[in-house]
Amino acid sequence: MPADTLVRDLTAALAEIPLIDPHSHIDPLSPTSRSLDDILGYHYYTELAHSAGMSQAPLAEEVPARDRVREIVRHMDRYDNTAQYSWFIDIARTFLGFQGTRLTPADADRLFDVAEKTFAQKDWEKQVFEKTKLEKIFLTNEFDDPLMDFDTSRYVPCLRTDTLVFHLDRPDTRERVLKATGIKVVDAATLRMAIATLFLHFTRKGAKACAISLPPDFEPAHYDDEYIYEQIRFHDCRDIAPGVFWIVAEFCREFRMPFDLMIGVNRKVYANGVYQGQDLFDQRTSLLQYRRVFNAFPEVTFPVSVLTSGQNQELVAYSWIFPNVVPNGHWWYSNIPAYIRKDLSERIQAVPKTKLVGYYSDAYKLEFVLPKYAMYRRVLAGVLADEFVRPGVLSETGAVALGTRLLRDNVREIFKV
Amino acid sequence: MPADTLVRDLTAALAEIPLIDPHSHIDPLSPTSRSLDDILGYHYYTELAHSAGMSQAPLAEEVPARDRVREIVRHMDRYDNTAQYSWFIDIARTFLGFQGTRLTPADADRLFDVAEKTFAQKDWEKQVFEKTKLEKIFLTNEFDDPLMDFDTSRYVPCLRTDTLVFHLDRPDTRERVLKATGIKVVDAATLRMAIATLFLHFTRKGAKACAISLPPDFEPAHYDDEYIYEQIRFHDCRDIAPGVFWIVAEFCREFRMPFDLMIGVNRKVYANGVYQGQDLFDQRTSLLQYRRVFNAFPEVTFPVSVLTSGQNQELVAYSWIFPNVVPNGHWWYSNIPAYIRKDLSERIQAVPKTKLVGYYSDAYKLEFVLPKYAMYRRVLAGVLADEFVRPGVLSETGAVALGTRLLRDNVREIFKV
Amino acid sequence: MPADTLVRDLTAALAEIPLIDPHSHIDPLSPTSRSLDDILGYHYYTELAHSAGMSQAPLAEEVPARDRVREIVRHMDRYDNTAQYSWFIDIARTFLGFQGTRLTPADADRLFDVAEKTFAQKDWEKQVFEKTKLEKIFLTNEFDDPLMDFDTSRYVPCLRTDTLVFHLDRPDTRERVLKATGIKVVDAATLRMAIATLFLHFTRKGAKACAISLPPDFEPAHYDDEYIYEQIRFHDCRDIAPGVFWIVAEFCREFRMPFDLMIGVNRKVYANGVYQGQDLFDQRTSLLQYRRVFNAFPEVTFPVSVLTSGQNQELVAYSWIFPNVVPNGHWWYSNIPAYIRKDLSERIQAVPKTKLVGYYSDAYKLEFVLPKYAMYRRVLAGVLADEFVRPGVLSETGAVALGTRLLRDNVREIFKV
Repeated sequence: MPADTLVRDLTAALAEIPLIDPHSHIDPLSPTSRSLDDILGYHYYTELAHSAGMSQAPLAEEVPARDRVREIVRHMDRYDNTAQYSWFIDIARTFLGFQGTRLTPADADRLFDVAEKTFAQKDWEKQVFEKTKLEKIFLTNEFDDPLMDFDTSRYVPCLRTDTLVFHLDRPDTRERVLKATGIKVVDAATLRMAIATLFLHFTRKGAKACAISLPPDFEPAHYDDEYIYEQIRFHDCRDIAPGVFWIVAEFCREFRMPFDLMIGVNRKVYANGVYQGQDLFDQRTSLLQYRRVFNAFPEVTFPVSVLTSGQNQELVAYSWIFPNVVPNGHWWYSNIPAYIRKDLSERIQAVPKTKLVGYYSDAYKLEFVLPKYAMYRRVLAGVLADEFVRPGVLSETGAVALGTRLLRDNVREIFKV
Repeated sequence: MPADTLVRDLTAALAEIPLIDPHSHIDPLSPTSRSLDDILGYHYYTELAHSAGMSQAPLAEEVPARDRVREIVRHMDRYDNTAQYSWFIDIARTFLGFQGTRLTPADADRLFDVAEKTFAQKDWEKQVFEKTKLEKIFLTNEFDDPLMDFDTSRYVPCLRTDTLVFHLDRPDTRERVLKATGIKVVDAATLRMAIATLFLHFTRKGAKACAISLPPDFEPAHYDDEYIYEQIRFHDCRDIAPGVFWIVAEFCREFRMPFDLMIGVNRKVYANGVYQGQDLFDQRTSLLQYRRVFNAFPEVTFPVSVLTSGQNQELVAYSWIFPNVVPNGHWWYSNIPAYIRKDLSERIQAVPKTKLVGYYSDAYKLEFVLPKYAMYRRVLAGVLADEFVRPGVLSETGAVALGTRLLRDNVREIFKV
Repeated sequence: MPADTLVRDLTAALAEIPLIDPHSHIDPLSPTSRSLDDILGYHYYTELAHSAGMSQAPLAEEVPARDRVREIVRHMDRYDNTAQYSWFIDIARTFLGFQGTRLTPADADRLFDVAEKTFAQKDWEKQVFEKTKLEKIFLTNEFDDPLMDFDTSRYVPCLRTDTLVFHLDRPDTRERVLKATGIKVVDAATLRMAIATLFLHFTRKGAKACAISLPPDFEPAHYDDEYIYEQIRFHDCRDIAPGVFWIVAEFCREFRMPFDLMIGVNRKVYANGVYQGQDLFDQRTSLLQYRRVFNAFPEVTFPVSVLTSGQNQELVAYSWIFPNVVPNGHWWYSNIPAYIRKDLSERIQAVPKTKLVGYYSDAYKLEFVLPKYAMYRRVLAGVLADEFVRPGVLSETGAVALGTRLLRDNVREIFKV
């Protein structure tokens, strides 16, 4: 609710645009929350409560959901300044009839009950889609996901390749590949066959992207078949990740699939962190590490997410120069208004507008798509007002058209949905 | 004096909060300035005057204080655009009855005389405390400081460990340790005993923190006792710093003391710089270097200051994830409004509010606490207005409460004062 | 055209200041455009059109200029959000009588014809100088440029040393040195003689600066004569760049010439990019790499440009400490309003105002000086309004004086023009 009429008008206009959310972790077999525990169990809340002093005891599986929610809510007065808290207030107000602007521990139980009843409605999924004006949402699917029993035109499959690229050294990964493809990986040829089989499976099910998250020091490389063979045969696939990445990129080319790169995450930095709250980063990383792959695959579009706002200028410059590099949303630690505003202002002044994929929710449950996109639209409206409408560069209508491009048109064109 | 009523009102409300300043270099035996030379001899002014073309001749000890002040003032029209200049104007107006907004060389002498008279007042220290609404201020004490002859409830001791950690290879450091503790350091056991003795001395005198400044490439490590012994015995303690840091952290745990980390300074980069104006940095550094220590000492709170705004996102993310990491003030090269505004906006949107230590003065003389905090409060008021009050998230009262948390409450809770 | 009266007034006042542009790539023998192809052939437009999907076919030499212009204009609706597009609109409106605010493909031909006629006017160069209020503009001259047949008081020569420093390992470079100086480089002594001869030639022709662009990982070093001899004699000058840089700095000292450092560019990252659209960077770089040279040459002024906004704080801090380091303009990937605003705000709060070289055009054709400086002045006016006038620190007159310093006075003083 910004004070400014222009920003408010633009925000309202942008809110009318039906969304295609190009990245999430939704489980299409259980897309919505079943209790408030599903909402507040989201790692953003467990992280912040834990960071602010909550022990991990309430997070144990055997703790009743209601008690866990109480604890997380009880700690909210320690982190009610955060963007994440405001998402929750938005959810409570939009979906659960909450009237206030701050939550107190006293609200926990009542809200828990309301949520239970609300989420149990038969058409809850449909209601969330409608309130969110959500048209389609991309998934994150493990390579051996059967992709069965859900509507792939609404839930768009996406082949996540972290395990394939980084954990082929684990016997169970190779076992899973064998089970999913019928191919035993023993050399580069069988590795290619197996990956081809997975791509075939995914594209037949309507997959629209391949994706991977990458550590700050990673650098893809083309390995020759003999080296790959040796790694598989004699070294348990130990030093093979850069080469497997390269082969995945080859199949992205062949299957004409964008390859989402999510760059910068170091896994398990806080070893005793809450579930999914252990990963951090090292700001010392560069897109220069991807120069070979960007050069070698001009036919593959790489929607790139960077973890730090400090790397945004690299993303801006690489997207400005390489036709196949496009900036993709605002990821994780950069998904707060201060960073979105900065990074978006930089991108929108220097990268062709047809290449700007504005936002994705990264949500685990559908209820989060609405508050996250609402936050983004408010920032987007502010940037459009300050950089285009107020200086007389665009009319309000023109600004909304530009916003629509970032929110929707580019997702359709780049991911071909 | 921002033009905006809301920001002005918030600034005024924040100015009412009594201060506990959690980091300074005040000498409690000589806390206030005795002449204008003490004010303008502050390295910020000598640096800027020198950087703008002043030779170092006026800084020689034998130059009369009045002449030195004249020279520094004479160069002010070259750096009167800076934040540091505005601190001086604030001091001149608040403490010395200066009426203007810009200083000319003609003012130097008169101001020098006024200062001499003003600072000589018997109750000057008390006056400064009152005008500043200062309640307590933390010191920076060398490990062998006797901590005598001052009121430790007002001047809070803080054990500075740079010399211990980084200069144990110097015979005079080991000599000083021997003198201060009666213990001759010959191996890990005696090193621990000596450090324990220092901690005991400091905590008995009311010390509330341990602190250290660290070069950009430093990485603490746990060294085993045998290695430490060898380093002490055969290598003059040459490669021992990461391990001594670790032992200091162990005693912070034992004595339940926060360990202030001030990360990023390279000493003596400008070899011929003015006194204290020789240190710079290398932006290529990461908090990842501290992952081991953050993981190994969950019981120790680490208030972390980073030298560059570019590292602020790491600080935000590490504070969001690690319960024992808290962002601490705006240090040195980041202590200007442009960086404070950016860094504060990022922190206040993503880190639990109970973990945000808003500011410290880093002052060498008490007169600087007022203008530095005034600068911070103006920026804080602007951020509270833009991020919380104007979007309707907080009332003005709520915003002032949030500001109070950053300015005072968290210092009390985190440092247990 | 910002909405705000104060900013508009300041912008108007700053627009009255005659410009001395301290860095460009103007060819003094052909300073203005001859057709719209010269305007839209500027690498910013070919890059953006190509990045947005245009093939490189229209850029081939044999393609008629009119067709190439049509193609680049036809792609404009993909990048009409960018700062670069707004420069073009500014050129079209100011120089070509264009009335609209957006260009359509239909405008291409008409504009092409108008440009042809306009640029063919006898006094076109004079007209551009006048409309731009341009007094002098610095060039970028290869070391063997004869510097003949142009007015060096208007077109100020500048000795560009990239080739000398980085490509002495190429036989043709040594051949060119021989031809330009009559000296065959066989050891350190002859290398010095040759460079001295070049400096003599340049200073006689009124050169006011020496300049070089540097890769992110470069670190200058003093090499002894014997090592240089060995490199020249036995290793084809392979590892000699850091040492040649040092010798160039020595002659900057001797000839009292500022040495412009443009830090951060990696050449040919996008191997198949358009002409001049192949270079990118690695954010992992530090001014610490220049500490030796900054310390060794206190008499040489180093106007430093950094490629990334992330390195701006280093530039601010190094300029605040080192008397001989001055921040220089907003370069290339940082030359868009979002970065200029951020970097300028930081510099103007912390670096002595007498050291701030506000801007340079980097233009290849004179017509670009006007829109680029206009963009800078709008941002500068905004920063002066927000940081100085609105908080009551400076009057409007004072703010314009500060702006004049950045735009003109410092160029005159630092480069002695």
